[in-house]
Amino acid sequence: MAKQAKTAIQPTRSEDFPEWYQQVVKGADLAENSETRGCMVIKPWGYALWENIQQQLDKYFKQTGHQNAYFPLLIPLSYFEKEAECAEGFATECAVVTHHRLEATKQEDGSTKMEPAGELNEPYVIRPTSETIIGAAFSRWTESYRDLPLLINQWANVMRWEMRTRMFLRTAEFLWQEGHTAHETKEEAIEETRQMHSIYEKFLREHLAIPTIPGEKSEAERFPGADMTLTVEAMVQDKKAIQAGTSHFLGQNFSKAQDISFTARDGSTQHAWTTSWGVSTRLIGTLIMAHSDDDGLIMPPRVASQQIVIIPVTPKEDTRDAVIDACLALAQTLRSKDFHGEPIRAHVDKRDLRGGEKKWEWVKKGAPLRIEIGPRDLESRKVCLQRRDQAANEKTFLDKEEFLQNVENTLQEVQDALLERATNFRDANTHTCSDLAEFEKHWQSDQPGWLVTPWAGTTEEEETLSKKHKISIRCLPLDQQDGDEAPCILTGKTTKARAIWGRSY
Amino acid sequence: MAKQAKTAIQPTRSEDFPEWYQQVVKGADLAENSETRGCMVIKPWGYALWENIQQQLDKYFKQTGHQNAYFPLLIPLSYFEKEAECAEGFATECAVVTHHRLEATKQEDGSTKMEPAGELNEPYVIRPTSETIIGAAFSRWTESYRDLPLLINQWANVMRWEMRTRMFLRTAEFLWQEGHTAHETKEEAIEETRQMHSIYEKFLREHLAIPTIPGEKSEAERFPGADMTLTVEAMVQDKKAIQAGTSHFLGQNFSKAQDISFTARDGSTQHAWTTSWGVSTRLIGTLIMAHSDDDGLIMPPRVASQQIVIIPVTPKEDTRDAVIDACLALAQTLRSKDFHGEPIRAHVDKRDLRGGEKKWEWVKKGAPLRIEIGPRDLESRKVCLQRRDQAANEKTFLDKEEFLQNVENTLQEVQDALLERATNFRDANTHTCSDLAEFEKHWQSDQPGWLVTPWAGTTEEEETLSKKHKISIRCLPLDQQDGDEAPCILTGKTTKARAIWGRSY
Repeated sequence: MAKQAKTAIQPTRSEDFPEWYQQVVKGADLAENSETRGCMVIKPWGYALWENIQQQLDKYFKQTGHQNAYFPLLIPLSYFEKEAECAEGFATECAVVTHHRLEATKQEDGSTKMEPAGELNEPYVIRPTSETIIGAAFSRWTESYRDLPLLINQWANVMRWEMRTRMFLRTAEFLWQEGHTAHETKEEAIEETRQMHSIYEKFLREHLAIPTIPGEKSEAERFPGADMTLTVEAMVQDKKAIQAGTSHFLGQNFSKAQDISFTARDGSTQHAWTTSWGVSTRLIGTLIMAHSDDDGLIMPPRVASQQIVIIPVTPKEDTRDAVIDACLALAQTLRSKDFHGEPIRAHVDKRDLRGGEKKWEWVKKGAPLRIEIGPRDLESRKVCLQRRDQAANEKTFLDKEEFLQNVENTLQEVQDALLERATNFRDANTHTCSDLAEFEKHWQSDQPGWLVTPWAGTTEEEETLSKKHKISIRCLPLDQQDGDEAPCILTGKTTKARAIWGRSY
Repeated sequence: MAKQAKTAIQPTRSEDFPEWYQQVVKGADLAENSETRGCMVIKPWGYALWENIQQQLDKYFKQTGHQNAYFPLLIPLSYFEKEAECAEGFATECAVVTHHRLEATKQEDGSTKMEPAGELNEPYVIRPTSETIIGAAFSRWTESYRDLPLLINQWANVMRWEMRTRMFLRTAEFLWQEGHTAHETKEEAIEETRQMHSIYEKFLREHLAIPTIPGEKSEAERFPGADMTLTVEAMVQDKKAIQAGTSHFLGQNFSKAQDISFTARDGSTQHAWTTSWGVSTRLIGTLIMAHSDDDGLIMPPRVASQQIVIIPVTPKEDTRDAVIDACLALAQTLRSKDFHGEPIRAHVDKRDLRGGEKKWEWVKKGAPLRIEIGPRDLESRKVCLQRRDQAANEKTFLDKEEFLQNVENTLQEVQDALLERATNFRDANTHTCSDLAEFEKHWQSDQPGWLVTPWAGTTEEEETLSKKHKISIRCLPLDQQDGDEAPCILTGKTTKARAIWGRSY
C-alpha cells in the first residue's frame, strides 16, 4: 500500500491490536519471552517502570499503616486442603515441587544428564497467592483483640500455570504486592477493603493516568472464598476491559479455615475478619494498552523509567565535547529538581549513533519528554523540546531557562493530557442500554466497548448472557449503586443497581 | 545461681551462643520459622532492616552503572546440564518442579485431598542462583562489542535445600541480590569483580558497622565455575567467620557454556568475560551476631528499622494527651532531618503498656536511640536519652533543642562505637602464627578465633588441614598478598602470601 502512514510500529493498532501490543513491548525493550514456559524476562527499561510503581504504591501503603513482611514461596499441600474453595480456584494452574535434589549421570557422549531425586513426603506448591500461608502466620500472631489489626503487605513473585500467556498481562510467573489484613470487626475489615480499593483507583488515575471504574464484582466474578470483591476496571484501546487491581473482603471464611481467632473484649473467642488486595506487573500491560500509539510506548511521566531524555546533536567533531557537556549539565540541573517529591529522572544519550536513530528509539521507548541540543543552541541558550504525547515531528524551541522554570508543569501537562485522552476514549466507548434486543445486537460488532445496564439477574442468568456474547459483568459501579430505579435489562425486575458489561483480558 | 546478672536474653552469649542467637531473633521479633521446611517468615521489624539494606546497596549499584532486571524463577533442567560444574555444586540441594496442577478428590469424611497432576515433559528447578538463565539472556543480547558491557542486577528469592538451617544465616529460601555482568575484555571483568567487592566491604563497614577482611578465596573455597572468588569475611562474637558477600570473576567459563559471544573490534568472534556478585539476608544474621548483646539485638543506626523510638511517660491521665502530643511533634521534627541523605526514622510508642515493659521491648528490638518524655520534661523542655550501645540503665538528660541540634552526631556516634567495638574484637581475636605445632594446638580451644599464616600449600594440603581441625581458609587477604617473604606454615616453601584460617558459619 503506497499511501500507508509511516509508523514506528508494524502492524498498527487498527490493523492488528494483539500483534501491535507485542511489537510495542519489543520496540520499547521492556521484556522478552524466556525458555521457561509462559515466563518473561523483564528488561531494565521495563523493570525501572515496575520499580517506580512499586515505590510510589509502597508509600501509600505505609502512610495507611501497613508494614511489609516476607512469607515462604512454597506452600505445604495440606494448607490447600484446609481452604478448599480457594484451593480449587487455583488447583488447575499450580507449579508443584515434588523433589529436593538432582542426580547427575554422565552420558556415553560425555554430557551430563540431570534427573529429579529425593522425593518429598509432602509436595509443596509455589504460591499462586498467599492467603493460606499468611493466614497460618496470622493464626500464630493473634491471641487477643489487642493484637489486631494486623496490616501486612508482601512484595513477591507468584506463579499460576496459565495456558495462554501474554507479556505483562498474563504470565505464569508475575511480580505483585499482596496485602493481607485481619481485624476485630466486620466493619473495620470492610472499611479496609474500601480504603485499599480507593488507593488503587487514585494510583491508577494520578500516577498511571488511567481512569478506572471503581466497582464491585458480581458473585460470579468474585475471588474464590471472598464475600465481596472490589475492582478497578480500565478500558484499553481495543475497548476491552482489564481488571487492574482487586480488594477482597474475605469475611470470616479464611479465618475459620485457618483458625485466626482471638479473645475479644468481652472475653469470648472470636474469629478475625480478613481482607486481601493486590496489583501486579499487569499494571504495566494495562499502561501500555491504554496509552501507546502507532509509534510505540507512551509512559506517563510520574512512573516513567526516564522522564526526560536529552539527545546531543553533534554534527561536527570540534563542537562535540561542548554540546555533550551542556547536555550533562542540563541533566544534572534537572535531577536537582523535584516532580511529585522525587528527583526528576533525566538521561543523556551519549551513544555514537545518528540523531534520527536515537530519536526513534526514544519515541518507541516512550520517554515523556525529549530534548535536543546542538552547537547553535549553545550560543542562543535554546533547547528543542518534543513531547511524546504529541506528534513525533512536533518541535518547540525554548529558552533553556524558560524550559527549566516550567519543566515540572510540562511533565504534569503530559500526565494530564494522557489521562484526559484515556478518559475521553473510555467515555466515548461506554454506553447505557436498557433494551435487551439492542444489548444483544451490540456485541456483534468488532470492538464493542462497554454497556451499562440496569441489572437484577441471578448468577446463572449472568453466566448465560456472558457465555452467549463472550462478555462479562466487569463490575457494578459503586457510584451508580443508588441510581434511579429501572427495569433489569434481562428480567425486567425493578432495580437501582447498574452493571458494566464488556469483553476483557 | 543467685548472683547471675539480669539480662533480657536467656541464655547469654557465653552460656550458649547458638541458642542466644535464636532468642535474640525471637526477642527482637525479626523472624520466625514456618511450616515450610527450612523457610522462615521475615516479620515487619526484620523486613524493614532488609528494605534499608536493599535501598542503600541499590544506590551504590546504580551509581556504578548497573540496572535492575528480573529473570524467571524456574530454570529448565537442560540449562543445568550445559554448565555441569556449577550445576553439580547445587545439584544436591535443588527444589524441583515436576507437575503443573493439583487434582482434588473428596474423601469419605468430607475433606479434600490434593495430589500433583499434569506431569511436565521437562522438569524445572527453582533458581539456586541465576548464572544459567541470565547467561541465556546475555547470549541473546550480545551481538557486537557495542552491546557490552552488560551490567545487570536482580533482587530476588532463591532456594537451596539445605539440611541444617538457621534463621537468616542459612535458610532454604532466602532473599538476595545477584549482579551479573558481561565484558569485552578480561581486564574489564576483573576490574568489575574488584569494584563490587570494594562496594561490599564499604557497605558492611560504613552501613552495617562490620569490619571485614577483603580477600580472595583459595581454589578449594571458590564458587563452582569461577576463576577467582573475592570475599568479605566478618568475625562474629563467638569468633567464627561469616562469608558476608562474594564477587566472582567467571572468566569465559559460563560464556563458553552458554555462548555469550560477540563480534569483536577486529571482526573476530569472541566470548565475553563474565562476573557475578551477591549478598543476601545472611547480612542480617551477620549483623545480629556481630553487634547484639545479652539484652538483645543492637541495630546500627544507618540500617535500623527505626532509628529513634520515643516513649511517652504518662503516669497521670490529665497530662497524658499533652505528653503524647509533644512526642508526636518531636517525631515529626526528627523526620524532617536527614541522616546520610535519608529522613530520620522515628517512631512514637503510644501503646497502653507500662513504661518498663515498653523500654525492654525496644532494648530487645535494638533501636539505636530511645527517648523518654514525661510530664515534667514538658515544662523543663528536656528529654531523657538512652543509647542502645551503652548500658540499659544509662540515661542522659538533655535540653530538647540541644538533642535536636546534635541528633545526627549522636546517631553517628552510635554507628562509630559499634564499628570500633567490632574492629577491636576482631583484632584482639586474630593472631599471626608461623609455627605448625602452635597452629595445631590453637584449634583445640573452644572459641579459637582466627590465625594468619604464611601459606603456599596445595588444595589437597589445605583440605587435609581443614578437615583435621574443622577449619577453613577464610581468605587470602588482599592487603597482605605482597607481605614479606616467609616460610609456608605447612610446607616450608617461601611465600609472600598469607592465609586467614578459622571456624565458620
